[in-house]
Amino acid sequence: MSAQIGVTGLAVMGANLARNLARNGYTVALHNRSIEKTDALLEKYGHEGDFIRTESLQELVDSLEKPRRVLIMVKAGKPVDSVIDQLVPLLEPEDIIIDAGNSHYEDTRRREAALAEKGLFFVGVGVSGGEEGALLGPSIMPGGSRKSYESLGPMLEKISAKYKGEACCAWIGTDGAGHFVKMVHNGIEYADMQVIGEAYDVLRSAAGIEPAEQADIFTEWNKGTLSSFLIEITAEVLRHTDPRSDKPFVDILVDSAGQKGTGRWTVVSALELGSPTSGIAESVFARGLSSQREQRLLAQETLKGHESSVELPESFVEDVRLALYASKIVSYAQGMDMLGAAAKEYGWELKLDEIASLWRAGCIIRAELLDDVMKAYAGEDRPANLLLAPAFAEAIAEAVPAWRRVVATAVQLGIPVPVFSSSLAYYDGLRRKRLPAALTQGLRDLFGAHTYNRVDAEGTFHTQWSGDRSEIEAVDTH
Amino acid sequence: MSAQIGVTGLAVMGANLARNLARNGYTVALHNRSIEKTDALLEKYGHEGDFIRTESLQELVDSLEKPRRVLIMVKAGKPVDSVIDQLVPLLEPEDIIIDAGNSHYEDTRRREAALAEKGLFFVGVGVSGGEEGALLGPSIMPGGSRKSYESLGPMLEKISAKYKGEACCAWIGTDGAGHFVKMVHNGIEYADMQVIGEAYDVLRSAAGIEPAEQADIFTEWNKGTLSSFLIEITAEVLRHTDPRSDKPFVDILVDSAGQKGTGRWTVVSALELGSPTSGIAESVFARGLSSQREQRLLAQETLKGHESSVELPESFVEDVRLALYASKIVSYAQGMDMLGAAAKEYGWELKLDEIASLWRAGCIIRAELLDDVMKAYAGEDRPANLLLAPAFAEAIAEAVPAWRRVVATAVQLGIPVPVFSSSLAYYDGLRRKRLPAALTQGLRDLFGAHTYNRVDAEGTFHTQWSGDRSEIEAVDTH
Repeated sequence: MSAQIGVTGLAVMGANLARNLARNGYTVALHNRSIEKTDALLEKYGHEGDFIRTESLQELVDSLEKPRRVLIMVKAGKPVDSVIDQLVPLLEPEDIIIDAGNSHYEDTRRREAALAEKGLFFVGVGVSGGEEGALLGPSIMPGGSRKSYESLGPMLEKISAKYKGEACCAWIGTDGAGHFVKMVHNGIEYADMQVIGEAYDVLRSAAGIEPAEQADIFTEWNKGTLSSFLIEITAEVLRHTDPRSDKPFVDILVDSAGQKGTGRWTVVSALELGSPTSGIAESVFARGLSSQREQRLLAQETLKGHESSVELPESFVEDVRLALYASKIVSYAQGMDMLGAAAKEYGWELKLDEIASLWRAGCIIRAELLDDVMKAYAGEDRPANLLLAPAFAEAIAEAVPAWRRVVATAVQLGIPVPVFSSSLAYYDGLRRKRLPAALTQGLRDLFGAHTYNRVDAEGTFHTQWSGDRSEIEAVDTH
Repeated sequence: MSAQIGVTGLAVMGANLARNLARNGYTVALHNRSIEKTDALLEKYGHEGDFIRTESLQELVDSLEKPRRVLIMVKAGKPVDSVIDQLVPLLEPEDIIIDAGNSHYEDTRRREAALAEKGLFFVGVGVSGGEEGALLGPSIMPGGSRKSYESLGPMLEKISAKYKGEACCAWIGTDGAGHFVKMVHNGIEYADMQVIGEAYDVLRSAAGIEPAEQADIFTEWNKGTLSSFLIEITAEVLRHTDPRSDKPFVDILVDSAGQKGTGRWTVVSALELGSPTSGIAESVFARGLSSQREQRLLAQETLKGHESSVELPESFVEDVRLALYASKIVSYAQGMDMLGAAAKEYGWELKLDEIASLWRAGCIIRAELLDDVMKAYAGEDRPANLLLAPAFAEAIAEAVPAWRRVVATAVQLGIPVPVFSSSLAYYDGLRRKRLPAALTQGLRDLFGAHTYNRVDAEGTFHTQWSGDRSEIEAVDTH
């Protein structure tokens, strides 16, 4: 008997992917650096399908049908390179190495190029859905050469999450495209969680709504356009009472949010691409600020709020829902804009409708909204920005008055809403006829001779500020 | 006759630095890849001091007293490496190569380490002040080994800008510290210009104040706590009438602001350091958004503003001044926080008071405020955050009510104020007792078993969400 796929690295994520594959009828060869994990898996879950136990990478490779498929699930970074280095001498042209971990897409690009030279396929796969998703059906974003997908795609589609029967897995694009898209998914996840946090904070701090009552509100919200996994579990967390203290669970948590780096990667990449992902950036910074505990403790004592009092409108809860919804749409618009920029930069033919469709189930940001995003990008008339798709332009227009009220209220009450306000600034910046960037260009020309363009003439110009202030046509060398 | 310093790369910045050195009494050997630039400089400015004309790097090196000092002023990136590679075989231990261009500090770290192995000193120097500053006295931020500063420091101090007689030049720290600090200077410059733009936009769009009248307002502002080079030239730009159209100059400028990358670098570095520089990030994104002309044109047609009307208080102009001032202070606080984080990360002994002092004259962000920043960090009791220094805590507390009014007003009127609002969110986030990051931690524990800390107990915990929801103590592996 030979296996259709081998999995090396059997910590929870690797083990669950292996089990998912076996439960879907594939014969899976197992390998782990220490055999104990392999045996533990076999003992507990061996009955779930056909597994082959192997004690070395050589044995793993020998147990596979050709062309071979070896899935690596080890810690991102050097461990991935190390396993690749060990595997390469054991493989033959057309064999496929699959990295299903959270690797940086630049690493994936580098590895893919190196292995392509040896005739091997290297496929960086973004997998979202956590441990449970890995077992029951994650959202899967494979990159690498299109040819590798012929052999690998059907297996991945089979084990992926399904949205109304459609597999949440499709070939994303060459080399690092899969890991890139997964990274942006995670960046959007940061923003999603931050806007939920801002809604919660405003509801509680402005309107005095306690966590248990908010749980009902979020449950209600989950029935409408906000319907999503994160809104659903927000209700769950807010409803939970800490058994130890009998207080609302959220109140016993230290209010410093950790991060594992993919949000940061997303913003770094957006900066490199020149794509303004302010919502994701503010979310990353909000986590950073929350973790500066020493400064925060001192600031609580020292800094004055001078809050105003504000009368809340009767529609306040609904206002907050709309502010959350609009801000969320902006985060998606920014993420999608970034994908468009990356496609140009890296020569990927990213299909934004397909990408949105993969996120409809299995992954952390799964949401009804993503079905609308998919539809917005389907068809010929792909919008230049998600906000410009008719359905979204309308939805956000309806939300705008409430959104403005909520931000203005929070600002007056001293409640920080970095992403609500940043998203609104992005929206207003995008739709505005004239931006003060004109003044910026004037200043840059004055102090650095950076030159400028005119609204009424072609060409690049410079004003001779320290001379007679006449204008000269300039060759733009800056 | 031998020269005290050689300069290679005689485009405007290099030529002006060379002239500055010569005008201060140093004998300067000149070199350029094409001799024409050298001869042009000598013909036009040869009378300003003692220059030695050289036609090759060998000749340049031979003309220098020992230990030699060679200043490179070429385009950042590969050209710097190329010149270094040509110079190294010609030099002897203890000679100094000075890179005065806008190099990335990581490149400087790499080069410094490589040259140190050969016994050579490599000094990355941040120079701010543009072409005029280079000639008349820039702000100078040298990194590299402390020993190199003994030989080089006095020359650099002599040609630097002076603030009330004090040289705006001091040794910053080892390896890339000088270029790092210059980079953060540029990041702050982005934020400075953006908040000026927001003030201008709000004054014009909310209060209908035309550019010429605003010029008077900025001139007035320049007499108070906002006094700075950028406020001064804002008045100049706003007062200028375009000779071709007879319109306000600012109105004939295309409202897309360019960038050369140092703002972006600053934010990338802040992300890596985990320091929340939201003001600089929003400034970089605002420039990016302004340049997305295709999207903006479509958005102008499609997206609805639904602005409310707002009655402006009589104090509105003063309110805007205070909002600008407070936002500016926050940008400086974020920049300084980032310097503190970098000092830890890279083992630099950055003296924040000294750094602020170097920025008081010569550079683009020169401002009265920087004298206060210097004082805030002088002495034993260095504040954990600039905002916590008593003078700044007071100044910002006085500004807070106006700041809130301006942001709330802009938000209602549909005027984007990304940095005004982001800085306020940072201020409120820093001083707030509880942040919704607690909820974020709850969500992360639920979907990813990322664990959490409790406010009432030591240790790391996990709630068994899919089980009986009891809490277990966890080893934090995330």
